[in-house]
Amino acid sequence: MTPYRETFVVDFADCDPAKIVFYPRYFEWFDRCCERMFRSKGLPWTVMWPERGLRGLPIVDAQASFKGPSRFGDEITIEAWVDEWRGKLFLCKYRVINNGETTAEGHELRVWAREDPDSPQGMKAEPVPRDIIDQMES
Amino acid sequence: MTPYRETFVVDFADCDPAKIVFYPRYFEWFDRCCERMFRSKGLPWTVMWPERGLRGLPIVDAQASFKGPSRFGDEITIEAWVDEWRGKLFLCKYRVINNGETTAEGHELRVWAREDPDSPQGMKAEPVPRDIIDQMES
Amino acid sequence: MTPYRETFVVDFADCDPAKIVFYPRYFEWFDRCCERMFRSKGLPWTVMWPERGLRGLPIVDAQASFKGPSRFGDEITIEAWVDEWRGKLFLCKYRVINNGETTAEGHELRVWAREDPDSPQGMKAEPVPRDIIDQMES
Amino acid sequence: MTPYRETFVVDFADCDPAKIVFYPRYFEWFDRCCERMFRSKGLPWTVMWPERGLRGLPIVDAQASFKGPSRFGDEITIEAWVDEWRGKLFLCKYRVINNGETTAEGHELRVWAREDPDSPQGMKAEPVPRDIIDQMES
Repeated sequence: MTPYRETFVVDFADCDPAKIVFYPRYFEWFDRCCERMFRSKGLPWTVMWPERGLRGLPIVDAQASFKGPSRFGDEITIEAWVDEWRGKLFLCKYRVINNGETTAEGHELRVWAREDPDSPQGMKAEPVPRDIIDQMES
Repeated sequence: MTPYRETFVVDFADCDPAKIVFYPRYFEWFDRCCERMFRSKGLPWTVMWPERGLRGLPIVDAQASFKGPSRFGDEITIEAWVDEWRGKLFLCKYRVINNGETTAEGHELRVWAREDPDSPQGMKAEPVPRDIIDQMES
Repeated sequence: MTPYRETFVVDFADCDPAKIVFYPRYFEWFDRCCERMFRSKGLPWTVMWPERGLRGLPIVDAQASFKGPSRFGDEITIEAWVDEWRGKLFLCKYRVINNGETTAEGHELRVWAREDPDSPQGMKAEPVPRDIIDQMES
Repeated sequence: MTPYRETFVVDFADCDPAKIVFYPRYFEWFDRCCERMFRSKGLPWTVMWPERGLRGLPIVDAQASFKGPSRFGDEITIEAWVDEWRGKLFLCKYRVINNGETTAEGHELRVWAREDPDSPQGMKAEPVPRDIIDQMES
């Protein structure tokens, strides 16, 4: 799968008093890039969720490691891709590139969660449908 | 070390269209609880950072796993503690408790980063001072 | 109406590279204080909204003026109250006090928006019920 | 002055439990668009601030009015321009356009704040330099 890729300049609004990106913001970027990766494959969440009876794509595990900062004014690139389809789960990976160096890497492990009024939480994990995987990998 | 503990109700402002806490918000909570844990030990960052010549306590690795959601209106408790002092690094751990169940767990691995004008990044990792560890563990 | 009042220390997470509160954060605080003011009067939104068939309490107008900054580490107090009940609208006012001085003031003008499947937007403004006003003013 | 213009799709990350943009997010967008407007004129803040001895461009007053929501998945356009140069102050205006309709409008009143170690707040308002105004209006 070719990574979804986005390049932008780090805004004042992204940064903390240390003048670098406030680290929870990376996870917000991961979430946005995940959504935009689906959108770029013709699967906008606002259409795919009701069509497939999804409650959402909740996170089971999220992680990021940082080798260097992203500073106010830096131009950075984020790459996002699905690294592995694991039945009811799928693993999204992210890489942040700053001036040619990978400065952050991370992942989100997400669930394909269908609405299910009979479940205690109102949802039920089900295998990611084959045609969704095919469309994402195309 | 007795965990630092905070109990609060999940606000509308914390939640996403799925009516649960937007997951990057957990990392914002971790960061706040880390700061407040230091503050509760008599080490507010606004005093400790200039006194100790700190550039900050940047994150090397952050992670969270989720066993269940925190919903709009739920009363939750967050526990925070330093699990391990590793020389220049220290490992903060977090537990989110909702209705008696641990619904999220996570960590932040942080660096004791002194200002250093001679370093390429303007800072240099140094061992966490003994008296800081003692004060945190007291 | 006695103002709802909250006192807290400005966290690192609230601040921008200028080491003061990032200004959109004030509006997040206003929204949280509005919700907590209702909660403090026995009207949590998670209960009141479904009971009263509310879609929400959307904002028509929001404003803040700033006389001075709130800095990383400052202890501030926010006061919130409903200044005027205007039929289908109500005006919430906010005051931020830092070291005895009012450093920010603002308002939100909100709508009592009932769910209405026949409306183009799925909701319809209706007068705030008398008993709600009485409970808020008590 | 030709408005700075940006078009994007409202992400899941922007929305609240009512499935519309969480209103403080509009002010974050205003702040970002202000910065990007300067950047688009060849005046990135990371360069202009140190060159001109600026402490920042703090907000004196901010306001927004909402005629309709921006929903999860909507494609919206934000327009930003400096409406008036008022000596030490300048008025930025914003318009949010959704499906051909103006659904939100707002402003920020900002100060040209030079660093000044002799002032109690460490900064001093000064008139926006003529060449900055010229470059912004070009």
